[in-house]
This record gives sequence, C-alpha cells and structure tokens, in this order.
Amino acid sequence: MTKPLATRFNCPTEFALTVLGGKWKTIILAYLSERPCHYSELRQLLPALSDKVLTERLKDMQRSGLVARAKTASVSKSRPAYVLTPRGATLRPILTDLYTWGSKHSDSFGVHVGNPLQKLDGTDCGT
Amino acid sequence: MTKPLATRFNCPTEFALTVLGGKWKTIILAYLSERPCHYSELRQLLPALSDKVLTERLKDMQRSGLVARAKTASVSKSRPAYVLTPRGATLRPILTDLYTWGSKHSDSFGVHVGNPLQKLDGTDCGT
Repeated sequence: MTKPLATRFNCPTEFALTVLGGKWKTIILAYLSERPCHYSELRQLLPALSDKVLTERLKDMQRSGLVARAKTASVSKSRPAYVLTPRGATLRPILTDLYTWGSKHSDSFGVHVGNPLQKLDGTDCGT
Repeated sequence: MTKPLATRFNCPTEFALTVLGGKWKTIILAYLSERPCHYSELRQLLPALSDKVLTERLKDMQRSGLVARAKTASVSKSRPAYVLTPRGATLRPILTDLYTWGSKHSDSFGVHVGNPLQKLDGTDCGT
C-alpha cells in the first residue's frame, strides 16, 4: 500500500476515511491515541492481524506521517514506541467518538466488546 | 453482504467500524445525517458508485436498521426518501467529526475536497 494520496476527493468524509485508511489502521490509531505502544503490545492488542499485515500498516502510517517511533516517558521500556504524530493526533476526536459509540451501543446490538488495552494495563474489570 | 453482525468484538472501535460498514456506507450515512435524500440524489452525490452497489449498500443498511425509507416534510417530493433511523442517528457525532476533520485538514494535505450536497442544494460557493 504505497499508493500516494489522491489530490481530489468528492467530499470531506471520503477524504477523512481515506486518511484513516480502513478498519485495521483506524483501530491501531485508536490504540495509539490512548497511549504510545510498543510493537509487542500492538501484537497483543490485535490478535487477528498477522505480523506481516501489522508491520505493513505501521509502515504505511509512518510514511503518511500519522505515526512515528519515539522514546517516550509514558512507557517504561527504553526502546522506542509507536506514537501518534501531531498530524495523527488531529484524528483524535474521530477516534474517541468511535470508541465511545462502540462502548455505549454494544448492549443495544446484543454484542460483547472487549477492552484489550485495559486488560494489557491491568485496569480491565472483567466486563 | 447479508452477513449477520458478529456477537463479540475485540474492542469498541472495531465494533463501531463494523457497524459503519466501510467507506461507502459511511459516506451514505454522512449524507443522510445532513438531510433525507432520494435515491436519485444519492446517485448524484456518489458518482463513483454503480447503481448495483448503491442499491446493495442501502438495502444492507435498511436490514441492519440504520436507514429507512420515509416520507418527510424536509424534501419537497412526495416519494419516500432515505432517512437515518434513530439507531443510525446515534452515529451522528462520528459522521460529523469525519466531515469536519476532512474540511479542516484538506489544505494541509494538499488536497481539494468537493461539497456535492451543497452543490445539489445550490449552496456551494464554488470552493
């Protein structure tokens, strides 16, 4: 997926969805909007994704300037973690709304949703 | 696409994205969050979609309870238009954020975005 971004879009929503780049990229961005994550953590958070696909998605988002690798104080290890860039962080309102909507409406759809980041951080209450 | 919704999701964001159902469904929902639309209007708003695909997407969203056909006062013709159901309307904050983000950030990505609904309604200022 090295396809460059088109220069014209029919509407703002189509442009935003193209930048988000599909389900898995959006989910990765949503985790990174919560906190920086190491690769090994993203592996745990996204068990349905293969190493190959996760690596590709991360590289794509580094190339498009949404994600970077950086040493951060908020994760304990000294290795660089994946973080949202300032450009990636502009997507936060969308990412927060997706998470909030999913949390709020799962019951009315009769579905169960997990919270793998809370589980990873030991703050999951077993819901 | 008559696949029933899964009953378990790994995280709330994945569930929300699955309900939104991909790029074209999300774009259709975004237009309907602005105002009810007739089929012929959606055809104009989504020139990249074939009749077959548009019809399929609309049927899928009627089945999943996000969209309905209804006579409304806000569109002049007497034929029923496509409208968001109360369930579909819960997605409004996400749809609004996608549109807002796309409008606000197109310049910084060097892209041009149109406003086909404004053009259809004669309120487009030619940007």
